[in-house]
Amino acid sequence: MAQKPSIPKGTRDFSPLEMYRRNYIFDTIKEVFKTYGYQAIETPSMENLSTLMGKYGEEGDKLLFKVLNSGDFLKKITEDVREADSKRIAPQISEKGLRYDLTVPFARYVVQHRNEINFPFKRYQIQPVWRADRPQKGRYREFFQCDVDVIGSNSLLNEVELILIIDEVFKNLGIKTEVLINNRKILAGIAEVIGEPEKIIDITVAIDKLDKIGLDKVNIELQEKGIPSQAIDKLQPIIQLSGSLKEKFESLTEILKDSEVGMKGIEEAKIIFDQLKDLNLEAKWNLDLTLARGLNYYTGAIIEVKAADVKIGSICGGGRYDDLTGIFGLKDVSGVGISFGADRIYDVLNELDQFPANEQFTSKLMFVNFGDQEAKYCLNLLQKIRKAKIKAELYPDTSKMKKQMTYANSKGIEYVALVGENEMKEELITLKNMNSGEQKSLSVDALIQELS
Amino acid sequence: MAQKPSIPKGTRDFSPLEMYRRNYIFDTIKEVFKTYGYQAIETPSMENLSTLMGKYGEEGDKLLFKVLNSGDFLKKITEDVREADSKRIAPQISEKGLRYDLTVPFARYVVQHRNEINFPFKRYQIQPVWRADRPQKGRYREFFQCDVDVIGSNSLLNEVELILIIDEVFKNLGIKTEVLINNRKILAGIAEVIGEPEKIIDITVAIDKLDKIGLDKVNIELQEKGIPSQAIDKLQPIIQLSGSLKEKFESLTEILKDSEVGMKGIEEAKIIFDQLKDLNLEAKWNLDLTLARGLNYYTGAIIEVKAADVKIGSICGGGRYDDLTGIFGLKDVSGVGISFGADRIYDVLNELDQFPANEQFTSKLMFVNFGDQEAKYCLNLLQKIRKAKIKAELYPDTSKMKKQMTYANSKGIEYVALVGENEMKEELITLKNMNSGEQKSLSVDALIQELS
Repeated sequence: MAQKPSIPKGTRDFSPLEMYRRNYIFDTIKEVFKTYGYQAIETPSMENLSTLMGKYGEEGDKLLFKVLNSGDFLKKITEDVREADSKRIAPQISEKGLRYDLTVPFARYVVQHRNEINFPFKRYQIQPVWRADRPQKGRYREFFQCDVDVIGSNSLLNEVELILIIDEVFKNLGIKTEVLINNRKILAGIAEVIGEPEKIIDITVAIDKLDKIGLDKVNIELQEKGIPSQAIDKLQPIIQLSGSLKEKFESLTEILKDSEVGMKGIEEAKIIFDQLKDLNLEAKWNLDLTLARGLNYYTGAIIEVKAADVKIGSICGGGRYDDLTGIFGLKDVSGVGISFGADRIYDVLNELDQFPANEQFTSKLMFVNFGDQEAKYCLNLLQKIRKAKIKAELYPDTSKMKKQMTYANSKGIEYVALVGENEMKEELITLKNMNSGEQKSLSVDALIQELS
Repeated sequence: MAQKPSIPKGTRDFSPLEMYRRNYIFDTIKEVFKTYGYQAIETPSMENLSTLMGKYGEEGDKLLFKVLNSGDFLKKITEDVREADSKRIAPQISEKGLRYDLTVPFARYVVQHRNEINFPFKRYQIQPVWRADRPQKGRYREFFQCDVDVIGSNSLLNEVELILIIDEVFKNLGIKTEVLINNRKILAGIAEVIGEPEKIIDITVAIDKLDKIGLDKVNIELQEKGIPSQAIDKLQPIIQLSGSLKEKFESLTEILKDSEVGMKGIEEAKIIFDQLKDLNLEAKWNLDLTLARGLNYYTGAIIEVKAADVKIGSICGGGRYDDLTGIFGLKDVSGVGISFGADRIYDVLNELDQFPANEQFTSKLMFVNFGDQEAKYCLNLLQKIRKAKIKAELYPDTSKMKKQMTYANSKGIEYVALVGENEMKEELITLKNMNSGEQKSLSVDALIQELS
């Protein structure tokens, strides 16, 4: 026997049960997206490297999977590569790469198709992405992203609607959540009032660690980043901001009163919170100034969702970006979007044992195969049964009864139909419930009624 | 403005309308697969090149998209590539490739997971594949395959069931079809009785051209392939086989009576046809000896489906293969499967104007945005309406009425809701039918009833 075949590190096969559960997640999400007026698009797995390179930072460029040019890819090489740098040779032998996320391809799509698009453009996109990351538990080299964005509208109603979508998706999945909301402009205001506008990323990265490393170490980190102790002192009420939402906004307003951008951020956040108040969300929601994800491109709201009952990090997140399509030459188009983490949601549902029963995933009924004549007779019955939308099959081989029953059992099939010579004569079916063991004789119409 | 971005040659973006139509095809097909007891799997986009290479012939190897190794991929290169052969260097800088079809990954999956699989394994798989083919009309470098196979069963009932699936899929899609059926063993028998068993591929390739080039040129081609004129004479009744199915089988039986494999092929074909006779297929079906697709690996039935009303070539096809998993070391596992050509089916539906109406594809209702207070009020109404599974949205910006109506119109939204100060006071909604222009005032509950 040859060596057992395998798949590349960090990639996965999905078995029927996993597919059923993953599709349950995707279908639940898609259904909500559609109910809110979002429409699907898909983009190619491969993009030109010129589209992808330089969009994810230097680290991101390294994590792109590059596709070797077809044919005689060496023909352009004019130097001895034994002394050459892989990084310099790569562009000479590779022009295409696998998409790294759905955001950059979406921006490219919007710019390329801007004359056909009906703005504001509400789109969702559920496709795999690839990253040459070091594989580890929960981190894969191929994984699905599940993005929903609206582009071409500045209205904060879009943020509100995305939070409604979050609420409905997780309600439908049976996951209790907390939605954390921040605003990039508030963070910019903070950096401004403490006199360190260039340090905004250092500051938020440090504040973001409060839960993990505690206040003292956050302050030490701020110091190490070169922030003067006077500025760190000014930061303390912000790092330790607490109380009700109203109290938080009051403190913030006091602190940021001299920063135009900061006050604008507070105003935006308040409008969103004000709308949410009256919409009867199932999820809890709160302002969280330590939220600094995607700070490189978010310009307004920043949103992150955590499962209330499972410690697993963010299961959904996003924000507003004012100039996503600018990288492709289309300026001043604002967008806001969120992305659902399908793999983590899968893990949460698994841990909560919250996946629906498997009945939709397998056949409801299997006919035992007693021989050619019986099989032929059963095929006709099956056509009737399937027309009634009952998932049903005939065991294809005339194997021993035990083997056929074992198959039905392992496949989780609830009912087995037995049609031998007698049943054929009497135009009846013997129906066995595999769970209770109960058996009864009935006509095909009665069987359809029973299993519908 | 920067250069307009583009996508790699032979790849495609799918717009919302295209996605809706493609999903209509995939969903219709999936629904039938599931009703027949088939279950979904998915495999990674990237496979180890050792899994893919040598499985598709020399030409296929050239058409594989290879993924450049990450990091310093040149470090293993010990020669000056300026004088080296791309083909020899490729394996040193690339270990993974994009899947070329779903069949080889499926075989790999079955062997790798054979201890978890419940045989006979009925699986379907709908995923993209990639081929570095020269792009041309209707031929893409990334396209979806839609495969359904049962593996681990020799029963001809599987062939019958797959033909039932074909019939039901195309009936549900509203496409009239002809299902052509052949058997590799019959072709082998023919080659045997004319004394040219090694020339079976040459013979069937030539016969396959009968429709295109006519009898004389087929005979010339057979001659050029080195088949003696005595053998070509013997072939004439087969090339020109006609009459009813019964007559065809009678002639074939007479011709192949001395070939064991040929007679076996006739027997198999007759069993399948005999079963089909009583199953009330919508599709026409016939024996077609010129059918020679996939002859390299099919060992029994060969199936091909043509649209009756559109000239476009095969829209579905497949057959039985007795040793698919043998390439990965698992011997004697027989399988049979078919593959639906989604792109061609799309073109057929387009040409027949047979896609369903677009109402499911877009929002049914849009609320016009008159201002912040009105919008907030509408959000609450929307939550009620969406709970009733009506796809609905609120225009996010307080743009001019005309712009908002244009948006609704271009998006194909059927109804627009107008809620201004008066409506808020009276708790009514003014509902406008965008097709008829008709307007009426009604409560949210009445609106839900109207649009459900």
